[in-house]
Amino acid sequence: MDRRHFLRAGAIAGAATALPRGAAAAPVGLDLFAPWRGAGTVDDPLRLNANENPLGLGPRAREAAQNAFSVANRYTDNWSEPFRLKLADHLGVEEERIFLGNGSTEILQMAVQALGRDGARIVTADPTFEDVSTYRRPLGTELVPVPLDSRFAHDLDRMRQEASRASGPAIVYLCNPNNPTGTLTPYDEIEAWIDEDGETFFVIDEAYFELVEETGFTSFLSRTADRPNLLVVRTFSKIYGLAGLRMGYGVAHADTVGRFTPWMAKNNTNQIAIAAASASLDDPDHVRRSLAVNRQSRALVQETLDELGFAALPSHTNFIMHEIGMDVGAYQRLFLDAGIAVGRAFPPMMRHNRLSFGTPEEMGRWAQTVRDLRRQGKV
Amino acid sequence: MDRRHFLRAGAIAGAATALPRGAAAAPVGLDLFAPWRGAGTVDDPLRLNANENPLGLGPRAREAAQNAFSVANRYTDNWSEPFRLKLADHLGVEEERIFLGNGSTEILQMAVQALGRDGARIVTADPTFEDVSTYRRPLGTELVPVPLDSRFAHDLDRMRQEASRASGPAIVYLCNPNNPTGTLTPYDEIEAWIDEDGETFFVIDEAYFELVEETGFTSFLSRTADRPNLLVVRTFSKIYGLAGLRMGYGVAHADTVGRFTPWMAKNNTNQIAIAAASASLDDPDHVRRSLAVNRQSRALVQETLDELGFAALPSHTNFIMHEIGMDVGAYQRLFLDAGIAVGRAFPPMMRHNRLSFGTPEEMGRWAQTVRDLRRQGKV
Repeated sequence: MDRRHFLRAGAIAGAATALPRGAAAAPVGLDLFAPWRGAGTVDDPLRLNANENPLGLGPRAREAAQNAFSVANRYTDNWSEPFRLKLADHLGVEEERIFLGNGSTEILQMAVQALGRDGARIVTADPTFEDVSTYRRPLGTELVPVPLDSRFAHDLDRMRQEASRASGPAIVYLCNPNNPTGTLTPYDEIEAWIDEDGETFFVIDEAYFELVEETGFTSFLSRTADRPNLLVVRTFSKIYGLAGLRMGYGVAHADTVGRFTPWMAKNNTNQIAIAAASASLDDPDHVRRSLAVNRQSRALVQETLDELGFAALPSHTNFIMHEIGMDVGAYQRLFLDAGIAVGRAFPPMMRHNRLSFGTPEEMGRWAQTVRDLRRQGKV
Repeated sequence: MDRRHFLRAGAIAGAATALPRGAAAAPVGLDLFAPWRGAGTVDDPLRLNANENPLGLGPRAREAAQNAFSVANRYTDNWSEPFRLKLADHLGVEEERIFLGNGSTEILQMAVQALGRDGARIVTADPTFEDVSTYRRPLGTELVPVPLDSRFAHDLDRMRQEASRASGPAIVYLCNPNNPTGTLTPYDEIEAWIDEDGETFFVIDEAYFELVEETGFTSFLSRTADRPNLLVVRTFSKIYGLAGLRMGYGVAHADTVGRFTPWMAKNNTNQIAIAAASASLDDPDHVRRSLAVNRQSRALVQETLDELGFAALPSHTNFIMHEIGMDVGAYQRLFLDAGIAVGRAFPPMMRHNRLSFGTPEEMGRWAQTVRDLRRQGKV
């Protein structure tokens, strides 16, 4: 999308959807939110490739964010700190154990910069979310990518072997559910390792945690209280829909937080994200609505993939990784020509596509497109 | 200010000042902007201590920022990149020579992380803006603070001596105008050093550049085209009033930019800041208005300081450093008790106060307060 599109899309969406003051209290349908969507053309495709919340901000977040314009010219400390305390309270963790990031990616950056030194070795899944690998590059920290196991879960045995072979500090990055596969690694198996291994540092990325509906799936948040070698990373980009505002956080042992915060940028969060994230915590309805929409879109996609015989990994997130029987680059181009942005390359899974869930309406358009392409013998 | 204050202030200001659509085209008075201000009480003081633009966002920036809510749930690459290109065009620099930061402080962080290694020595003024010193701390990079000269300008001769003594790379940080003193170091003197010294890396922080009204004062922006050992750092926090939204940038030689960007956080700018900064470039009226208000506040303050016999350094910024004849901590407390936040400690200048300029009305309240304190024999 070029700037012209952005301005046009922004102006149209903005004019059409300014939220009436007080709307938060009224029953609100999806229409009132009206986040920007691609037009579904080659130049301006539907955006089913970035694991975003298609509903956008909830009504409370939107109103709070608008009100925060009054402090857009003020440095943020006096506003970010009360939010940090509120978030700690919301999560039930001691306030000294939580720190904010400009998205969860800045938390990952701090972790890599703080830990990835002195001959450290970072062990990750392959494929997994790539930011840890990106951030260790300029440091020259060794990275050991370990293929996912046959369940497309983390291969903890082999990761543990690789961690134990480190000549310096070992850091293990576990994205759970894993991006780009959407799969879960069982809590108990990770916990067993953590309980036995006080040497390795564990970074557990729970970006998609709030989207998991599997019974018994648990966060490692509470375990940070008694484990100084554990960092849990979270974001407001997914279930809360704040990807473009940037807000994430890390939770760790009180003795551990001070290892990360010297690597934080000053005034790293902004007034609008602070206000929107704070209000999001008070809007469980938007969380429920987001989950419901995600569930509906996932079912529609699963049904279509089944119908066409494309095997998919079990999705516990707002995207699904599925077989496509061809190269993902060519597959993406077919969809882009039809006005839909899907997937990207996640080596070594070059014959899979990661499809992000938009609204059910958007997924209906996707389903129509994939059926058309099948009829034409193209997929 | 606690959270209750924030929410109340936010709600009141937001309700009172939602900008009518189309207001950008009409003549707009200060009232319409209505950024949040402290009530002027002990609990909620006037905020004359953070070098912010008291006018807040201009009308174009505000409207653009509101429209950008439609993409608040979208990751930012497709929006930040067109803005980066527009900014390059606006500044007249090649697009490959500019990179964005989450405020200019992230640019400084990247610079320190990229350059402050392998036995590097960082030479700064004393006092100067402290973020470079903060960011080098976890790296353990040597810092050599060099006292300002008798003009309160950078003591370039002594800084050069210190740079030449580095056993590894030498990095010189020049904040010009300097924060917290508001003073200028002549362009020609810096240029003479840069022209003779291809070994030292120069980081020139021009955060307050747009506020300088001194004839003949020049940016080093254009010199980055032919000097690979030069980085110019700029911000939207000051003249454009976007401190709470976070947007800054760095400009360097095309061969040099790639040294910094590996240290950038992913998706480091946010949709609201992108939209507001972009619109700010199209709003020269707001820049003129901001300059006019700053000039008016500065004159009022200068007159009051003269009247009371407080010697001040020449201010080329949106703040003024002046003598107070007492310890700055005690001075701050006197003003806070009177409902005004001023200054902070900038060692070694512990008997000076850095006063930020609010609106002329706010500065009138400050002038009244300082006269009252004088009458009471307290200052």
